[in-house]
Amino acid sequence: MRQYEMAELSFRGPEPKGAPTDAEITGTFAKDGVEKTVPGFYAGDGTYKIRFYPEEAGTYTYKVTGEVTAEGSFIAEKAAGHGMVKAVGTHFEYEDGTPFYPFGTTIYALAHQTKDLMAETMETLKKAPFNKVRMCVFPKDYRYNKNDPAFFPFAKREDGSWDVTHPDCRFWDAFEEKITALGSMGIEVDLILFHPYDRWGFASMSQQDNLIYLSYLMKRFAAYPNIWWSLSNEYDFTPTKTLEDWEEIEKAVHDLDPYHHLESCHNGFHYWDATRKDITHSSLQVKSLPVVAHERARTGKPVMIDECSYEGNLNESWGAISGEEMTAHFWQAIALGGYCTHGETFLDPDTKDEDSAVVFWAKGGKLIGKSPERIAWLRNIVESLPGPIDPQTGGFGNLFDLSSEEMDDFIDKAPKQHKFFFNSMKRLTEYEKGILRAGEYTYAGQVGEKAYLWYLYRQTSARYEILLPETHTYKVEVLDTWEMTRTTFAEHASGSVLVRLPGKEYMAILATIEA
Amino acid sequence: MRQYEMAELSFRGPEPKGAPTDAEITGTFAKDGVEKTVPGFYAGDGTYKIRFYPEEAGTYTYKVTGEVTAEGSFIAEKAAGHGMVKAVGTHFEYEDGTPFYPFGTTIYALAHQTKDLMAETMETLKKAPFNKVRMCVFPKDYRYNKNDPAFFPFAKREDGSWDVTHPDCRFWDAFEEKITALGSMGIEVDLILFHPYDRWGFASMSQQDNLIYLSYLMKRFAAYPNIWWSLSNEYDFTPTKTLEDWEEIEKAVHDLDPYHHLESCHNGFHYWDATRKDITHSSLQVKSLPVVAHERARTGKPVMIDECSYEGNLNESWGAISGEEMTAHFWQAIALGGYCTHGETFLDPDTKDEDSAVVFWAKGGKLIGKSPERIAWLRNIVESLPGPIDPQTGGFGNLFDLSSEEMDDFIDKAPKQHKFFFNSMKRLTEYEKGILRAGEYTYAGQVGEKAYLWYLYRQTSARYEILLPETHTYKVEVLDTWEMTRTTFAEHASGSVLVRLPGKEYMAILATIEA
Repeated sequence: MRQYEMAELSFRGPEPKGAPTDAEITGTFAKDGVEKTVPGFYAGDGTYKIRFYPEEAGTYTYKVTGEVTAEGSFIAEKAAGHGMVKAVGTHFEYEDGTPFYPFGTTIYALAHQTKDLMAETMETLKKAPFNKVRMCVFPKDYRYNKNDPAFFPFAKREDGSWDVTHPDCRFWDAFEEKITALGSMGIEVDLILFHPYDRWGFASMSQQDNLIYLSYLMKRFAAYPNIWWSLSNEYDFTPTKTLEDWEEIEKAVHDLDPYHHLESCHNGFHYWDATRKDITHSSLQVKSLPVVAHERARTGKPVMIDECSYEGNLNESWGAISGEEMTAHFWQAIALGGYCTHGETFLDPDTKDEDSAVVFWAKGGKLIGKSPERIAWLRNIVESLPGPIDPQTGGFGNLFDLSSEEMDDFIDKAPKQHKFFFNSMKRLTEYEKGILRAGEYTYAGQVGEKAYLWYLYRQTSARYEILLPETHTYKVEVLDTWEMTRTTFAEHASGSVLVRLPGKEYMAILATIEA
Repeated sequence: MRQYEMAELSFRGPEPKGAPTDAEITGTFAKDGVEKTVPGFYAGDGTYKIRFYPEEAGTYTYKVTGEVTAEGSFIAEKAAGHGMVKAVGTHFEYEDGTPFYPFGTTIYALAHQTKDLMAETMETLKKAPFNKVRMCVFPKDYRYNKNDPAFFPFAKREDGSWDVTHPDCRFWDAFEEKITALGSMGIEVDLILFHPYDRWGFASMSQQDNLIYLSYLMKRFAAYPNIWWSLSNEYDFTPTKTLEDWEEIEKAVHDLDPYHHLESCHNGFHYWDATRKDITHSSLQVKSLPVVAHERARTGKPVMIDECSYEGNLNESWGAISGEEMTAHFWQAIALGGYCTHGETFLDPDTKDEDSAVVFWAKGGKLIGKSPERIAWLRNIVESLPGPIDPQTGGFGNLFDLSSEEMDDFIDKAPKQHKFFFNSMKRLTEYEKGILRAGEYTYAGQVGEKAYLWYLYRQTSARYEILLPETHTYKVEVLDTWEMTRTTFAEHASGSVLVRLPGKEYMAILATIEA
C-alpha cells in the first residue's frame, strides 16, 4: 500500500441475498485518531471489496462491517506519485503541491472499443502530449460512433430494461483496467457520468436508477487518484433530465465521493454555473476562447475549455478545424490563464460506412493531425515556467468583463484623454459586448512578475510593443507557435520594448525574468 | 447637361457684403410641373454657383434669385451613368435599377496628401477592385498620419480659431477634383463628415459652426452622384460631441441634402442605430462578421461592415490581419447578405519615422497586400450572380437572433427529436448568445432559388452536405477562395448533395440554377 495510490481490501463472503448493489459492506480507516468510513461493494463470485485512498503515508488501521467483518492494519508507504489533482484558486495542483497543467484530449467511447483498438489507443497516448482524457462511462450512439461495447454496465431484465442493481462486473473490471493504464501514463480520466447520445436507454434511466448507478460507481472508482467527475457531456442537450435532476446528480456525486475529486459539468450551449459549491471548475464547450477570462473572473475557479471544436475534416463545423486553429485554441486559453482540450476528427472522405470508421475523438486509434506535436511544444514551455499563468491585468478586452461599478472606478483612474473612450464602453449593450469580447481580446498572461506571455493569435504585426516592469530585467523571446521556434529578441530588457516580429499569424512573445 | 450628372450654373455677381456663407442664392428647377429649389454658394472671385442634380432626362427650366437673378433652361440628356446609389431593402441599387454591390476600401486622409501621392493613389485605384472609398473631409491626426494638408477648409481668425463662414475655396475645389476623379472610375465616395482624430480644432467646433459647415458642404457636394454621407468615423470615440449633437447633425444632413444621398454613422464600439429614419444603412466597425445577419434582421436595411481590421503589419490589432482574414471577412459578409470594406496598413517595420510613412489606409499610395486580388475575384463572382445575396433561411447560428416568440414558434415547428436541443437555446444568457453568435455561424446565402452560396471560412471539411431545392437542378462548384479556383463538382444536382472538398480553410460552395 502506498500514499496516493488506491488500497484495495478484498474479502470472501456470502452471495448477497438481495440485489448486489444492496449488499452492505463498510470500511472504517483510522490514522492518528482521524477516521474515514467508506463503502465497499460486491464484486461478484463471493468477493467483496473495499477501496480506500490513503491521503497520507503511515499506518492505517481498518475495521470492516456488514456482509463481511474484519479488522487489521497496513502501512501506506510514502508516495511515489503526486496524488489527486485538486483545484487551487484558478489553477490545478496535485495533492503534493506539484502544479498540474491540464493538456487534455477527447476519446468519448475509448472504453467501448475492441481490445486491439484500445491497445493502439494506449500506444498513441504514450507518445502524445495529453495528460487528461475525456471519456464516457456509458457507450455512445452518435454519428461515426454506433458500435455496441463488448459488455454493458448492468444486467438486463427480461423486459429489456436495465437492472442497475445487478452490475455486470466484466464491464466494470475492464473499465478499471483503462483507468489504471491511463494513470500509469500520468493521464487523468475526466469521466463523463452521463451523456445524451444513447440508443440503449442509459440516458433515460429513472433518477432513482441514476443514483444507484452513481453510488456503485463511486464505491468502485472513487479511490482511483487519476479520476475527475464530469457530470455530463452537453447536459443541456439531454432531453431526459431536468435541471433539478442535474442538481441532484451534482450533489450526489459530491456526497458519495469520500475524497472529493474534481467535479464539473460540460455544456452544449448554456454553461453550467461553476460558482455552485460542489463544482470545482468550469468545463466549457465554447468556440470563442476569450470566454476564459470572463469565466475565470466570474467564478474564481479554474476554467477548462473542454470542447472548442476538433482538428479534422468532418461535415460538421465542430469536427473540422485546422491544426492551426486547434493549436491556437490552446495558446489562447493558456495566455488567459485557462486550459484547453484537444480532439481529433479525421474521417476518410471516401468512406461509405462512416459508423464503422475509427474517428479518434470517438474511438481512439492513431493521431494524424498537426496539432499534437505543437501542443507538446506548448506544454514544455508552460511546464518550464516558474508557475501557472494568470491573465495580465489592465488588458483591453478585459474591460468588457468589468461590472458597471468597476468600470466607473477604472474610468476614474484612467488618463484624462482616454476617459471618453472608456465612457463609450459603458453604453454597450450586452449583445455588443458579447461580440466585442470575441473579437477584441488581447491574449496576454503573466506569472507574477517572473514571466509575461503575449499570444498574438492571428495578429500579423511586424512590430509589437510590450511593457515590462522597470524593476527587473527580462529575456524576450519571439515564439513561432506553428513552426515551433524560439528566437531571443532581447536580453536585459525592461520597460517598453518594441519587439520585431515576422508579420505572420500565430506568433507569441515570452519575456522571462533574469536571475 | 446630362441626367445623373451634376449640372453647375455659374454666375458673376457682387462680392458678398457679409460672410460668404451668408450669401443667398437659390435656384428653382422645374420639369413637367415639378419644382425643386436648391441653394447655391459663393465660389470666390465674384462667382456664384448653383449645383443641381437632374434626376430625369428632359428639359429643365430654372429661375435664380438672391445675390444673382437669372432665368433659363437646359436639356438634360439621357443618362450615360447609373445615377446615385440608393438603399433598396437590404441591398443597394443605382437609381436606374442596376444593382450596386459595394466593395469598398479606406483612405481616410486621401484628400490631404501631396499631388504626387494622390496621383499614385488614383493609379492604384484604377487597377483595384474597389468601388467605394471611405475618406474624411477634415484632415486626420493619428498615429502614422500627422501631416498638414496644403489647404484647410476654412480661413483662420486672428485668434487662431476657424472661421467657418469664410471657406477656403482652394480646399474645396481640390476636394471636388477628387470626388470627380473617383466618380470617373466608378468609385463612390463614402464621405466622413466628422471624426475625432484632430489637432487643428475641427472636431471641437461649436455645434453652430458644425451646422454652417454642413450647410456649405451640402451646397457644394450634394449634386455629385457618387457621394455618401458618413456622419462620423467612430462617433462614440468623439469626446467633443454629445449624443444630442450627433442626432442634430444626422437630421441636418438629411434636411440639407435635396437628393438624400445614403446616410450612415460609423461606430467605435457602440453601433449607431440604423433603424433611425434618416439613416439608410448600417456602417459598422466590428471584427465579428456574424453581426451582419443580426443587424440586417434587426434593421431591415443594408449592412456594411465598414471596418473589420485591415490587412497589414502594424502594432495595433486593428491594423494587423492577414490577407487571408481580410479576404475572408468579405466572403463572410457577402454570404450573410451584407458588404465589407477593405483597408491596408503595412508599415516598414524598420522605419524610425512612422508619422511620415505612407500607410495606405491613411494616405493612399500603392497596395501591396494579398487580399485585393482575391476581393476582385469575389466581386466578379458576386456580379455574375442573378441578384443580391440574402442569408439562407433556417440556418443554425441565425437562431440566436430570434426573439423569444419567434423561437417558440420555431420550436413548435421543429421535429420532435430536436425540440430539447432548441429549448436549451432559450436558456442562454445574452452574454452566451453574443459569444455563440461569434463562433457558430454558418455563412450561407442565397439568391432566391437561383443560386446558393456556402462559405466555409476556416472550416476544413473534406465533405460537406448541402441541401438544394428538389424543384430545380443546379451546377455545384467548389471554390477555393484563396487560390481563386472554381471546380465543377456536380451538374444537374438537386436535393441533398455531399460535396467533396480538399479539407482546407477558406473554401466555398456555389450552386447555380441550370436553365
